[in-house]
Amino acid sequence: MTLEAIRYRAGSLQILNQLLLPHETVYEEIRLVQDGYEAIKSMKVRGAPAIAIVGCLSLAVELRAGAGGEDPVGFIRESLCHLTSARPTAVNMGRAARELMEFTENESMEKSGDQLRESVIRCIEEMLERDVNDNKKIGNYGAQHILSGVPRDSVTILTHCNTGSLATAGYGTALGVVRSLHTLGRLKRVYCTETRPYNQGARLTAYEAVAEGFPATLITDSMASLTMREKNITAVVVGADRVVANGDTANKVGTYQLAIAAKHHGIPFYVAAPSTSCDLSLESGRDIVIEERPAEELTSINGVPVAAPGIEVWNPGFDVTPHQLITGGIITELGVFLPSELQAALTGRLTAL
Amino acid sequence: MTLEAIRYRAGSLQILNQLLLPHETVYEEIRLVQDGYEAIKSMKVRGAPAIAIVGCLSLAVELRAGAGGEDPVGFIRESLCHLTSARPTAVNMGRAARELMEFTENESMEKSGDQLRESVIRCIEEMLERDVNDNKKIGNYGAQHILSGVPRDSVTILTHCNTGSLATAGYGTALGVVRSLHTLGRLKRVYCTETRPYNQGARLTAYEAVAEGFPATLITDSMASLTMREKNITAVVVGADRVVANGDTANKVGTYQLAIAAKHHGIPFYVAAPSTSCDLSLESGRDIVIEERPAEELTSINGVPVAAPGIEVWNPGFDVTPHQLITGGIITELGVFLPSELQAALTGRLTAL
Repeated sequence: MTLEAIRYRAGSLQILNQLLLPHETVYEEIRLVQDGYEAIKSMKVRGAPAIAIVGCLSLAVELRAGAGGEDPVGFIRESLCHLTSARPTAVNMGRAARELMEFTENESMEKSGDQLRESVIRCIEEMLERDVNDNKKIGNYGAQHILSGVPRDSVTILTHCNTGSLATAGYGTALGVVRSLHTLGRLKRVYCTETRPYNQGARLTAYEAVAEGFPATLITDSMASLTMREKNITAVVVGADRVVANGDTANKVGTYQLAIAAKHHGIPFYVAAPSTSCDLSLESGRDIVIEERPAEELTSINGVPVAAPGIEVWNPGFDVTPHQLITGGIITELGVFLPSELQAALTGRLTAL
Repeated sequence: MTLEAIRYRAGSLQILNQLLLPHETVYEEIRLVQDGYEAIKSMKVRGAPAIAIVGCLSLAVELRAGAGGEDPVGFIRESLCHLTSARPTAVNMGRAARELMEFTENESMEKSGDQLRESVIRCIEEMLERDVNDNKKIGNYGAQHILSGVPRDSVTILTHCNTGSLATAGYGTALGVVRSLHTLGRLKRVYCTETRPYNQGARLTAYEAVAEGFPATLITDSMASLTMREKNITAVVVGADRVVANGDTANKVGTYQLAIAAKHHGIPFYVAAPSTSCDLSLESGRDIVIEERPAEELTSINGVPVAAPGIEVWNPGFDVTPHQLITGGIITELGVFLPSELQAALTGRLTAL
């Protein structure tokens, strides 16, 4: 089985409220762009690819209900701006918004009203389909690349945060690689970091692993280095919120530390991300703005205070892993590339694996 | 002010129940060795030095009440064995037990009954006094060593777990160094990792920092590397549960990862530990048995479940940092030593700082 985190049928969208996982499985109806915005902002849905797809699908359902009237272009533009502002670090929503806006403007030359709405809705539905297919390619390319180093053995993977069905349009990126390895019968075990402060690993990746029957072990973020030393880790595979032109990668805070530890232990470090998470307009990771999140994410868990009252907190949501530490490669739906090859690969000047 | 975690007056012992911190400040009466054992086992008291002193003081109060009758040697021996078994990784209790047993056997040649009890109690009280004085020396030596590299500036320290008044007989080890820097007016800021899975940093170090007025910031364990890169960390200072002959150091899980990250960033990494935490009988860290703790420490917080039901867990309580990564030095009450100098220093063949 694959968990269904996003339930979309023409005109209807429901999302699994990830704030309530793993204890309650509650789907929430998304009828309006504002519902989509709030679901993203409050992290009921998270993961850069899932954010983009839920944002766009929320627009599709509101359009299906007739939003925007005779000339929906203004409504679509405002909606996309609003959705992009909900979680600015995740690049996918911004990119989807630009593509969709360009498409809308072109279509609006010839169409208006229901006809234009219909075209935009179809464009969004195709995005959803393409995203799932791209993830399957990522899973297969990544699995093949990792297995090419260990011809017969089963492999042990360490991953961070949640990058599975719950974080994407479906299948997953880094956890999609794990899924492919499991399907091939070559996954010995996956170690999941709990991923403080928001515990996406403990709540979501562990939930998916149990649901899908992956052999999986939960560790704290602080145990990753010890796990690398003691548990014969074949590769570290993480997702990405944004990969820039030189291969520097913004991802959930803690990724940078895992990359340093992997380097120290001589373990290949992979980033798995669709090309839509790659942003060639930025030269290096220094240009990425890191979102700082509220102190309460650290000082309380599920509303229960855990830290000493009055303590100051620093809570960056992401960090940037320099490309030098991405020693395994960047796994995309086009193949697996070294950071130095990424730009050429994405602009069609290189085809790999 | 300095927090009073252990309240001892002749015949009476109270300990601050650290499981209830930072939200409730509750002192619990320790009347028997069994009370001491349970307080250690359940982690109402933790930190290798505090474990030893509370264990021994629990024996002192039961002896003061007349335990052991006319020939208390057998009672003392059994009590010390029992206390040592509560948390086997922490070496201090074992060492204190051996010293106290040797002292008891010598004294028992000439004394018995109340007279022998009186001697043993006095020996334990001297241990307490010596421990606090040793910590003050550790604090001062460590502060001087760190400041010698930065003649005029204030310094920023990153620390792990809790090694302050709450973990020791008083003053603290690694946090004692921070305390000394603060007293000297040279502490710009201390960053405390929350220290999963037991959150000693968030609960205890943060509590001490707020109580003592240290400029302090709480981060997750996963943010340590980013903090090193972004926040101009002068030194990383951690405590130790056990330092062996070659300088390899067992300490709270996550220490090894911090040492790797410090090395990567060229930041000196210090271990602060009284010589009683040094165990020259073991050659290297490979000989240290690492305690594995219950899965529930990871899967629930304050009794609230946080992880997906059914997930497997690996929960080592400690890790071993190889001496090569202890680049700043080992701070003891005798001075600051390189790992390679430790053995000579502790056996009196070297005086340093």
